[in-house]
Amino acid sequence: MDFGFDARTEELRQRLLAFMDECVYPAEEAFEAQAAESGWTVPPLLEGLKAEARERGLWNLFLPGEHGAGLTNLQYAPLAEIMGRSPRIAPAATNCAAPDTGNMEVLAQFGDERQRKEWLEPLLRGEIRSAFAMTEPAVASSDASNISLSITRDGGEYVINGRKWFASGAMNPDCRILIVMGKTDPEASSHRQQSMVLVPTDTPGVHVRRGMHVFGYTDADHGGHGEIDFTDVRVPVANLIGEEGGGFAIAQARLGPGRIHHCMRLIGMAERAVELMCARALARTAFGKPIAQQGVVQDWIAESRVKIEQLRLLVLKTAWLMDTVGNRGAHTEIQAIKIATPREVEWIVDKAIQVHGAGGVSQDFPLAGLWAAARSLRLADGPDEVHKRSLAYRELKKHVTPPLS
Amino acid sequence: MDFGFDARTEELRQRLLAFMDECVYPAEEAFEAQAAESGWTVPPLLEGLKAEARERGLWNLFLPGEHGAGLTNLQYAPLAEIMGRSPRIAPAATNCAAPDTGNMEVLAQFGDERQRKEWLEPLLRGEIRSAFAMTEPAVASSDASNISLSITRDGGEYVINGRKWFASGAMNPDCRILIVMGKTDPEASSHRQQSMVLVPTDTPGVHVRRGMHVFGYTDADHGGHGEIDFTDVRVPVANLIGEEGGGFAIAQARLGPGRIHHCMRLIGMAERAVELMCARALARTAFGKPIAQQGVVQDWIAESRVKIEQLRLLVLKTAWLMDTVGNRGAHTEIQAIKIATPREVEWIVDKAIQVHGAGGVSQDFPLAGLWAAARSLRLADGPDEVHKRSLAYRELKKHVTPPLS
Amino acid sequence: MDFGFDARTEELRQRLLAFMDECVYPAEEAFEAQAAESGWTVPPLLEGLKAEARERGLWNLFLPGEHGAGLTNLQYAPLAEIMGRSPRIAPAATNCAAPDTGNMEVLAQFGDERQRKEWLEPLLRGEIRSAFAMTEPAVASSDASNISLSITRDGGEYVINGRKWFASGAMNPDCRILIVMGKTDPEASSHRQQSMVLVPTDTPGVHVRRGMHVFGYTDADHGGHGEIDFTDVRVPVANLIGEEGGGFAIAQARLGPGRIHHCMRLIGMAERAVELMCARALARTAFGKPIAQQGVVQDWIAESRVKIEQLRLLVLKTAWLMDTVGNRGAHTEIQAIKIATPREVEWIVDKAIQVHGAGGVSQDFPLAGLWAAARSLRLADGPDEVHKRSLAYRELKKHVTPPLS
Amino acid sequence: MDFGFDARTEELRQRLLAFMDECVYPAEEAFEAQAAESGWTVPPLLEGLKAEARERGLWNLFLPGEHGAGLTNLQYAPLAEIMGRSPRIAPAATNCAAPDTGNMEVLAQFGDERQRKEWLEPLLRGEIRSAFAMTEPAVASSDASNISLSITRDGGEYVINGRKWFASGAMNPDCRILIVMGKTDPEASSHRQQSMVLVPTDTPGVHVRRGMHVFGYTDADHGGHGEIDFTDVRVPVANLIGEEGGGFAIAQARLGPGRIHHCMRLIGMAERAVELMCARALARTAFGKPIAQQGVVQDWIAESRVKIEQLRLLVLKTAWLMDTVGNRGAHTEIQAIKIATPREVEWIVDKAIQVHGAGGVSQDFPLAGLWAAARSLRLADGPDEVHKRSLAYRELKKHVTPPLS
Repeated sequence: MDFGFDARTEELRQRLLAFMDECVYPAEEAFEAQAAESGWTVPPLLEGLKAEARERGLWNLFLPGEHGAGLTNLQYAPLAEIMGRSPRIAPAATNCAAPDTGNMEVLAQFGDERQRKEWLEPLLRGEIRSAFAMTEPAVASSDASNISLSITRDGGEYVINGRKWFASGAMNPDCRILIVMGKTDPEASSHRQQSMVLVPTDTPGVHVRRGMHVFGYTDADHGGHGEIDFTDVRVPVANLIGEEGGGFAIAQARLGPGRIHHCMRLIGMAERAVELMCARALARTAFGKPIAQQGVVQDWIAESRVKIEQLRLLVLKTAWLMDTVGNRGAHTEIQAIKIATPREVEWIVDKAIQVHGAGGVSQDFPLAGLWAAARSLRLADGPDEVHKRSLAYRELKKHVTPPLS
Repeated sequence: MDFGFDARTEELRQRLLAFMDECVYPAEEAFEAQAAESGWTVPPLLEGLKAEARERGLWNLFLPGEHGAGLTNLQYAPLAEIMGRSPRIAPAATNCAAPDTGNMEVLAQFGDERQRKEWLEPLLRGEIRSAFAMTEPAVASSDASNISLSITRDGGEYVINGRKWFASGAMNPDCRILIVMGKTDPEASSHRQQSMVLVPTDTPGVHVRRGMHVFGYTDADHGGHGEIDFTDVRVPVANLIGEEGGGFAIAQARLGPGRIHHCMRLIGMAERAVELMCARALARTAFGKPIAQQGVVQDWIAESRVKIEQLRLLVLKTAWLMDTVGNRGAHTEIQAIKIATPREVEWIVDKAIQVHGAGGVSQDFPLAGLWAAARSLRLADGPDEVHKRSLAYRELKKHVTPPLS
Repeated sequence: MDFGFDARTEELRQRLLAFMDECVYPAEEAFEAQAAESGWTVPPLLEGLKAEARERGLWNLFLPGEHGAGLTNLQYAPLAEIMGRSPRIAPAATNCAAPDTGNMEVLAQFGDERQRKEWLEPLLRGEIRSAFAMTEPAVASSDASNISLSITRDGGEYVINGRKWFASGAMNPDCRILIVMGKTDPEASSHRQQSMVLVPTDTPGVHVRRGMHVFGYTDADHGGHGEIDFTDVRVPVANLIGEEGGGFAIAQARLGPGRIHHCMRLIGMAERAVELMCARALARTAFGKPIAQQGVVQDWIAESRVKIEQLRLLVLKTAWLMDTVGNRGAHTEIQAIKIATPREVEWIVDKAIQVHGAGGVSQDFPLAGLWAAARSLRLADGPDEVHKRSLAYRELKKHVTPPLS
Repeated sequence: MDFGFDARTEELRQRLLAFMDECVYPAEEAFEAQAAESGWTVPPLLEGLKAEARERGLWNLFLPGEHGAGLTNLQYAPLAEIMGRSPRIAPAATNCAAPDTGNMEVLAQFGDERQRKEWLEPLLRGEIRSAFAMTEPAVASSDASNISLSITRDGGEYVINGRKWFASGAMNPDCRILIVMGKTDPEASSHRQQSMVLVPTDTPGVHVRRGMHVFGYTDADHGGHGEIDFTDVRVPVANLIGEEGGGFAIAQARLGPGRIHHCMRLIGMAERAVELMCARALARTAFGKPIAQQGVVQDWIAESRVKIEQLRLLVLKTAWLMDTVGNRGAHTEIQAIKIATPREVEWIVDKAIQVHGAGGVSQDFPLAGLWAAARSLRLADGPDEVHKRSLAYRELKKHVTPPLS
C-alpha cells in the first residue's frame, strides 16, 4: 500500500502544474465570458488549450493501456486532482473529461476493431465528442433493472424506442455518437436484460428534445445533459457493444473508473475552495477584524483540511486497490469514496461560499458552480443511499452464517 | 401567546387557498416556460394573475396600517406561508413580493407625503417595481459600517458615487425607483454614518452593469439582482428618506419584517417540498418496492415534519411578539428564525431533491430553485454567523455582571 | 392555540421557583454527597424536601383529575420544566418522578377501586414507590409484540414466568409494587396478546437480580433500573389492570403523558446546561480572552437558544393538543417531541460539557449526568427510529390513495 | 508513503491476535466482574495476563528505541488498533497503557540516568505504575500558560504547592511516581515558565483527595483520575526532568505520540463497535424482520465503515510522517487525527448503542464504556476547538504575505 508518487507521476504533475499556471487559470475569466454568451456551444478558446495540452504531452492521461497514456489509477489520481482545480477547463483541455472518458474506456475495453476505429480514434484525437444515455425520466434509474428503453432486433438491425434524459454530453455540437443502454431481453434475469449500442447522433429518429438544467446551470460548456427521444431508430447489429445482455456488466465496468475520476477531481475542487476561502477570509474585514480571525471561520478551515486529508488518502487507497486487485476487489472502497467525497466536498464548498457572502453564490467566483457539481454527484452514478445499502450488505455478510439473503 | 387563526385570517386563508388552487398552481408550468424564454423580463402571464388577485381582495396583505391590508404579523404569517408554496408566482401576484414589500414599508413608515405619493402609491397599485441597493461588492456588507458608497451634499442635491451589487429587483424592466443606502458622514459614530435616498432608475449616472446570478439562476422573474454603478448621480435632497444618519436605523426597521416574511414563505416552500417528496416516494419503485418503504426515506420524511412543526411555531411566536412588544422586543426571536429556517428548509429541500433523483436538480421540478432560494437566505439580510454572534452576546449578557464589553 | 400561562399556572410557577431557590438548589451538593455514599438507597435528605414540598402545595402536580392536582398538560408543562432544572431532586421531592407518575396515572385511569386504594393512595402520599416492568433482555422490546414474559391463568391466579430488565424504580428500597406487562394470549392478534398485572415486590418468585447501569451511573437515587426474574410468581386475578389483552392499549395510554413529561423536564435540563455553559465561558480565560469571546462557543450558545425556543413551543403545542383533542389526536406531535427533544438537549449538554473541559465529564457538575439522562431518552419509551418510522407512515398516508399498507 | 505491513509487524500482529483470542476476550467477563467489585483496585486477573503477554513477547511495544520494543509508529499502529478492541485489558496487559506509556517516553527521552534507573526500569518491567499531573481544576488548562501550580527552588529542593486533577493513573494502588508540571518562573516567556518534576507518591504533602468520575465511571481499572493537593511538597532538584522552563516542550513531545496512540486504539474500538452492531442487528427481530434489514441501520453500518477506512488511513499517514519527518513535521496530521477520530468513533459507538436498545447503555456490553472513552478524548490532551484553531492558523498562513499575526 504505497501511495508515493513515482518518477513518471511526479514528472507529469510538474508538467500539468505548469500548464495550469501558464494556460488554464489565466483563461478562466475569458472562458466564463464565452460560456455565458455561447448558448449550447463550447467556448471557442478551448480548442487552443487542447492543442497546447496535446503538445505538452498532457493528453488522454486517464486511459490505461495502449490506447491512452497508459497510467495506473494511482498515477492518474494526483493528476486528476490537479485538473479538478479548474474543472470546467482542465479536463476538457486534456481530453480527460466525462462522459468521453468513460465512453472511450468502454470502446477500448469492449469495442471491436471497427467500433474503435470509427469512434474511439476520433475521440482520442479530441475531434468529436460523445454522450452516454442510461438514465430515463420515467423510472428510478438507480435500479438498473428498471431501465426500459426498448432495443429490438429486426434482421440485421436493432430498432430503438424510448426516452432518455441526463444524457451527458448530448448538447455538445461536436457530439457525434451516443452510447445507449436499453432492454434487449425483458425475459432474461434482471442483470442480463440490458445491452449497449452505439447510435450516431444523426441517425433518423434520434431527437434531442432539450437540455436539462442542474441548479440553474446548463453545463453547456461540457456538453450539457440532453433529453433524447428515440423513435424507431435503426442501427446495424454491428453497433452492439460486447454481447447482448452485457449492458449491465459494461455499465458496472464503466462506472468504477468514472466514480474514482469524479472523486479525484472533487478533491482538487475542494482544495480550490479552501484556497478561495482562506484568501477571502484574509482579505475581508468585518466588525473590526479580518474574517480569518473569526473562530467559526477558523473552524470551517480546519474541518476542511481534516476532511480533505482523509478523502485523498481513501481515494489513493482505492486507486491502488483497483490497480492491484481490480475493480471488483475495490468494490467497498469505490462505494466508500463515492459516498464520502461528494458530500464532504459539498460541505467544504458551502462554507467557502458562506465566507464569500453574496459573491459566493454568484458568477464571479467558481464556488456556486463547484457546489452544483458536488451536489449532483450525490445522485450521478447512483445515489448515495443505493451505495450505502449495498456496502452495508457486504459489511453485514462478514458477520453472518448462513449469509443474509 | 395565542396563535390561533382569528376569523379574518381564516377567511383570507380560504380565499387565498382557492386562488392558489384555481389560478396559481395551474399557471406554474406556463410561467416557467415564459420565464425560460423571457430574458430579463417578467413572464407576461403575471399581469393577469395580479388583476385576479386584486379583484379577489388578495392584495398588499403584507402591509400593516392604513396603506395596506392592515393585518398583524400573526394574521399575515399563515397567508405568507401559503404564498411560499409557489414562491415565484404567488407573492408577486398578490403584490407581496420582496424587495417591494420592504421598500413599501420603508416609504409607508419613513417617507414623507411627496415620497409616498410619488413612489408608494404606484407601488401599492402594482404599477411599478422598485429595488433596494445596500450590499456592495468591495466590502463585507454584513457589517453595515463597512458600506462605503458616498453620498455628498452639494447645495440642494446629493451627489452619489459608488457601486452596489445584489440590488434585488433592479433588473426588472418595470423597476422605477431605487432605495440606496450610503455614507453621508464618515466622521459620525458608526451607526449614524449612513443615510437612505431615493434614486429614480433613469437618473443620469445610474448604470446597471449586469444581473448577478444565484447558483445558475438569474431570478429574472422577480427582478433579478443588479450590479449598479453610481457616477456623480444627483438627486434632490428631498429624496432623503427620514433624516441624515438614519440609514442604519431604517435598514434595521426594514429587515425585521423582511426576515420574518422570508421565514413564513420558507415554511410554505418546505411543505411543498414534503408533498413532492412523499408523492415521488410513493410513485417510484426501486429494488422491488416503492421508495416510500425505504427506511432512510421515511427517516427524511419524519425529520422534515418534526422540523417544520418547530419552525412554524417559532415563526408564529415571533410574529406575535412583533405585534405585541414590537420588533425590538422580538430581536432574539427574529434572529432565531433567521438562523433556523433557511438552514432547516434547505435540508428538507435537499432530501426532496435526493428522492427525485436527477429530476430533482432539473428544471422539471421546483425543488432546485427552492433550494437555491433557501440557501441564499443563509446569506441574505445578514449571514447566519452574524446573527448567531449577536444572539449569543444577548444570551451571555443575562449571566454577567458587569456586562460583557 | 393559546400557550399563555393562566393565573393558576403563574401562581404555581412562582411557588415552585421559590421552592427551587430556597430548598432544592441549596440541597444539591449534599444530595450528591449522600447519593455517592448510599448504594441503592435514596439520599436521606429527600424526605425532608418531600415534606416541605407537600406543605407548600407542590405535590402530585403531574396528575390530572380528582386524584392529583388536577392540572392540564399545558398548565403542568412550565412546572415540569422548572423541576427538570434539578432533575434528580425536584421531581422526586414533589412526588412527580417517573416511573411512579406513569404508574399512578395507570392506576387512576385503569385501576379498580381496590387497586387504587391499596397502591394508588400510598403512592399519592409518597409513602411507597413503584416500578414498571415492560422491557425484556431477550427481545427487541421496541416492538411490543415481541414481549414474551408469560402470564398464565391458573384458577383464581395468574402465574408469571420470565425476565424483565430496566424495570425503572425496582432498586428503590421503598418499591412495593411492580406493574408488569406480559403475554396472556399468544394466539390473539398482535396488539391484544399482552396484559398488565400488579405484582407486589415481596411476592414469592420475584427475584431482583441486579441493578442495570446507564453509562456509569446506577441512577440509584431515583430507584435504579432492575433486572428481575419472575419464577412461578402467583398473583390473584384481581391484580389484572383493566382487561385481559388490554396491556398494549394501557402501555400506549401510559406512554403519551410519560413522553411529554420527559420532554418538559428535558427543556429545563437544557436551560440549566445553557446557564452553566454561559457562566463557565465567562469565568474562564484561555489564550488571552474569556472563553465567552470565542466564536465557536458563541455559536454553541446561540444554537442552544434557537433549539430550546423551538422545542419548548412544540412541547407546549403538544400539551395543548393533548388537552383539547386527546392523546390520540396529538400522536404526531407526541412523537415529534419524543424524537427532537432528547437529541437536541443531548447536543446542548454536550456543548456545555465541552466548555467545562475535564470538569464537564466529572461529578463536580451535573452535566455528565444530564447528558446520560438525555441520551437514554433516545431509547427509553421507544427508540427514535421506531417513532420516526411511524410518523413517516402517517405523513405518507396523507398523500396516497388508496392508503399505504 | 508506504503503509503496508512489514514482516515484523505482520509477525507481531499474528502473535497479538492470538493473544487476544486466547487470553483477552475470554477474560473480559471476569475482568468486568472483578472491576465492579474492586473499588480503586486493579482487577487481580490482570497480573496473569501481563505475565502471559510478556512471555509471548508482547511487551512495551509502544516504545521506540533501545528501552522498548523498538517499533516505529507505523509498525505500532496496527498493533495498538488491535489492543483498542479490548481497551480496558489489552493495553494494560501488554504494558502499553496510558498514562504510563507517555511517562515512560518522557523518562526515556528526557530523563537522566538516575531517573531512568529508578523509575523507568520498574515501569518497563510493569512493577509499578505512574501518573501524569498537568490539568488543574482552577484554570482553563487547555492553555498551558494558565497552569499555576507553583514549583519554587529552595536550596537543593523544589517546593511544590497547588492542586491538580484528572491526574490519570493516580488512583492506582501501584502508582509510585507522579510527573508533575508546574510553574518555575512566572516571569519567563509564556512557553518557558513551566517545568516537569518527578514526585514520588509517598512524598509528604502529597494528598490524593479523590478520584474523578467520567460519565459515572471511575476508570479505576486503569488507575482512575486523581485530584491531588500538593502542600509544601519537597523533592530534590535532581528530580527535575530536563531543564527548568522545559516543561511545555516536554509536554508537547509527550502529547504527539500520546495522541496518535489514543487514535490507533480508538479505531480498534470502532471496529469492535461495528462488529457488535452487526451481530446485534442480525440477531434481533422487530416489526417482522431482522433489524439488519432496516434501512436506517444499514445506513449507520455503511457510514461506520466509510468513516473507519478514512480514519485508519489518516492515522497511518500520521505515523509514517512522524517516523520520517518527526513529530513537528506531522503537526497538522496529529491535530487532524486528534480532531477527527474521537468524534467519529463516538458517532459510531453511539449508533451501535442505539442498535442494542437499553442493553447498549448498560454494563452488559462494552459500548457505553467505549462511548465515554471516545467522548473524553474530545477533551483530553486538548479540546478539539484548540486543535482546530491552531490547525486553521497554519492553513491560513499558507495563503498570506506577510504572515498572519
